[in-house]
Amino acid sequence: MAKDLTSRSEDYAKWYNELVIKADLAENSAVRGSMVIKPYGYAIWEKIQGELDKKFKETGHENAYFPLFIPKSHLSREADHVEGFAKECAVVTHYRLKNDPNGKGVVVDEDAKLEEELIVRPTSETIIWDTYKNWIQSYRDLPILVNQWANVVRWEMRTRLFLRTAEFLWQEGHTAHATRQEAVDEAEMILHLYGDFAEKFMAIPVIRGIKSENERFAGALETYCIEALMQDGKALQAGTSHFLGQNFAKAFDVKFQDKSGKLEHVWATSWGVSTRLMGALVMTHSDDQGLVLPPNLAPIQVVIVPIYRNDEQLDQISEVANKLKAELQAKGISVKYDNRDTHKPGWKFNEYELKGVPVRLGIGPKDLEKGTVELARRDTLTKEFVEMDNVVSKIESLMVEIQESLYNKALAHREENTVEVDTWDDFVARIEGEGGFVSAHWDGTPETEDKIKEATKATIRCIPLDAVEEDGKCIFSGAPSKRRVLFAKAY
Amino acid sequence: MAKDLTSRSEDYAKWYNELVIKADLAENSAVRGSMVIKPYGYAIWEKIQGELDKKFKETGHENAYFPLFIPKSHLSREADHVEGFAKECAVVTHYRLKNDPNGKGVVVDEDAKLEEELIVRPTSETIIWDTYKNWIQSYRDLPILVNQWANVVRWEMRTRLFLRTAEFLWQEGHTAHATRQEAVDEAEMILHLYGDFAEKFMAIPVIRGIKSENERFAGALETYCIEALMQDGKALQAGTSHFLGQNFAKAFDVKFQDKSGKLEHVWATSWGVSTRLMGALVMTHSDDQGLVLPPNLAPIQVVIVPIYRNDEQLDQISEVANKLKAELQAKGISVKYDNRDTHKPGWKFNEYELKGVPVRLGIGPKDLEKGTVELARRDTLTKEFVEMDNVVSKIESLMVEIQESLYNKALAHREENTVEVDTWDDFVARIEGEGGFVSAHWDGTPETEDKIKEATKATIRCIPLDAVEEDGKCIFSGAPSKRRVLFAKAY
Repeated sequence: MAKDLTSRSEDYAKWYNELVIKADLAENSAVRGSMVIKPYGYAIWEKIQGELDKKFKETGHENAYFPLFIPKSHLSREADHVEGFAKECAVVTHYRLKNDPNGKGVVVDEDAKLEEELIVRPTSETIIWDTYKNWIQSYRDLPILVNQWANVVRWEMRTRLFLRTAEFLWQEGHTAHATRQEAVDEAEMILHLYGDFAEKFMAIPVIRGIKSENERFAGALETYCIEALMQDGKALQAGTSHFLGQNFAKAFDVKFQDKSGKLEHVWATSWGVSTRLMGALVMTHSDDQGLVLPPNLAPIQVVIVPIYRNDEQLDQISEVANKLKAELQAKGISVKYDNRDTHKPGWKFNEYELKGVPVRLGIGPKDLEKGTVELARRDTLTKEFVEMDNVVSKIESLMVEIQESLYNKALAHREENTVEVDTWDDFVARIEGEGGFVSAHWDGTPETEDKIKEATKATIRCIPLDAVEEDGKCIFSGAPSKRRVLFAKAY
Repeated sequence: MAKDLTSRSEDYAKWYNELVIKADLAENSAVRGSMVIKPYGYAIWEKIQGELDKKFKETGHENAYFPLFIPKSHLSREADHVEGFAKECAVVTHYRLKNDPNGKGVVVDEDAKLEEELIVRPTSETIIWDTYKNWIQSYRDLPILVNQWANVVRWEMRTRLFLRTAEFLWQEGHTAHATRQEAVDEAEMILHLYGDFAEKFMAIPVIRGIKSENERFAGALETYCIEALMQDGKALQAGTSHFLGQNFAKAFDVKFQDKSGKLEHVWATSWGVSTRLMGALVMTHSDDQGLVLPPNLAPIQVVIVPIYRNDEQLDQISEVANKLKAELQAKGISVKYDNRDTHKPGWKFNEYELKGVPVRLGIGPKDLEKGTVELARRDTLTKEFVEMDNVVSKIESLMVEIQESLYNKALAHREENTVEVDTWDDFVARIEGEGGFVSAHWDGTPETEDKIKEATKATIRCIPLDAVEEDGKCIFSGAPSKRRVLFAKAY
């Protein structure tokens, strides 16, 4: 397997795109902006899904499924919401094709025009709140804690595999509550669930924070987010949790009778993470040799490659390898024994490096003699010989060690690339230079944020939850500020 | 919970629709023909998904994800295929809305018309074979064994919850093979996987067979199917597996180099089951009291209801109930203890009957004194008192017993409602009378099948795989026939 992978320093964007394709994660399809998620990539997505789904259920949520299509009039009900999504949505106008009268395949049948156009969901608040209207009468019907795993479509003009695609996969939680506080608590609980998931399961350190008004979800009163820093110094929004207030309840007239018998509008949240997380994963851990996967997300955690000259040697190695494989599997570790005779060991080594398999074991005739095995660690690209008797326990502890080590490395990278600046010149120099998170004072107005974005392309990624009160002056306007916010260029 | 459920004998279709809604499985949405799958219904679907996904993986398949949209020209490539789907597909023609110049919400932006219309996938053969073209060069790249879990859209005019909806959820497997035999073997292997799944997991007896030409999938050379018989004597196609020959490989020019270096078109299969299975589940087991769920599919397998007059009694009961719950959960049984004080025990009994919970335990003060618990079995609607010490082992064996009993009951129903007929008069009388499967001779021509359908609405559900050779005469044309086929009216 010749990698021919562009190096990160040469062209980070190109490296990313090549790696996603060469490592068999995804590829572009015949449909502009829509990707094919290949089996290896999808297997990683399934691990993300599985862990999140478990966490949602542990916190009392249930899955459901709502329609793909949204009547156009529904989308319009919440003013900010339609403003946010109308400009990038796929519109279904007809429900039938017919044979082309000119004999060229099929054409749209104009007799089958829909009375009202349908929008392919860009997100499901409107169709869901239209449904909740019938589910909610009394405080006894609350809270509703529902999630759905679904595909959504946003007609992006410039697309990039996983990071920005016309169609993507995600989960969207939609909850309904009797009180403002309960909804805020839910939105914050989910923020922390996402944060812990990103850090502990994906080994991606994130900043938990609140979006500025400009960056808020269309229709939300408050958007909480987790923000990660990629290797190239650009930020990536990895998940959002919205406190929607009563906006959608008002738009869809969803009221409940409280304990005192009074009718009130319902309080709402929505929250989601998407296949974007796959992009975050790649750009947090991988290197010029290919993917680096944390053990939690690796479809294959250990690969065993036999090194042999003849069938007799292969038989002897296979006996040992299959025994080892069984022992590792018994410990819950996923193992592939790659005894294909169509490829040389060197090709296989490259292949599994490219695909980010955390641990590779090479076994040759000499190893059999000595009772050893060569263990290569993907994250550090280091090799060592391990006694056969110790290899299972060694790998068990490595699974934990690699996971932690990747997190620590990414955290160190973020810390090295987070600076406080206090002047406009320093701000511009940093944003246009190394990038990274820039912590600076801001006067709190959308106008200033717009101007900073126009001048530098940097946006406020978030106001960190743990921001401390501190007197300062806005780097742009000089107006007084009470706390620093995090700026960065972003994906 | 007042059930107010129409009885099956009164109006089977009405009973079905009411039950699906009242038992919180699904409901109609604001979008014509699209349903909302509610959490209780979705939890059952998740069990179906989980078990099938495990079986697919055990048989070497991997999941992937392909685009929702199919360029119109792709759909046209395979002639039979486009003929089969063009007349019922949702067509995306625009990618943007704009504010209505007349100030009424949003309208389609005619400046954002797509150059080529996109079809919302009714099934994914075309987009997938367009992708496989790039994945396959050599025999080394084969077989490809891929499945996807997805939503699809077929614009049905008359829709019914789960049975026929414009959008539905399904899995679709798409495999590519080097030889005809390998593809046929795959299609047949999946047929048996589906058959075993329906019978062992869902307790739904099915006939494994082959479709006649008329009922074949658009683009297939052979369609294998599993057919179930509902309580009202109508058949339901519960899953299909298609041998596609080289049709899609030819349409998308997918060739591979075989071991001798010769270029050949690839052989294909596709296969799927959908949320229709939910309809089959309801109409196989349920009764006039509500749902009856096999333990394998029940989101709640055991519910415990306390019967008490005061808080002191409730506390005592709760102590016992929670201990029992923990013991059952330790055995892998899902248990709900419903100690809500907002509803009376009688209401709860009705509610869990309606929702098909297989076993209900009632515990009152007298039970505590005697060391017993009242156990009600949903499928037989029988009650008995069980010693508290025996209740866990009793329930463990009941989980197996109920599962088997439901299967046997459904099988007996099918056997009672399957008859052989040899004359046209008997055929018509049966089809227009009791219904059920009618095993009869047919001359093998599509024309005769059409005429029989026109006269009676009955179609050939399948040619059973285990059909024996037998000389006979077609009930309609009198022409000679070598085997019987199964006719029925169908959902």
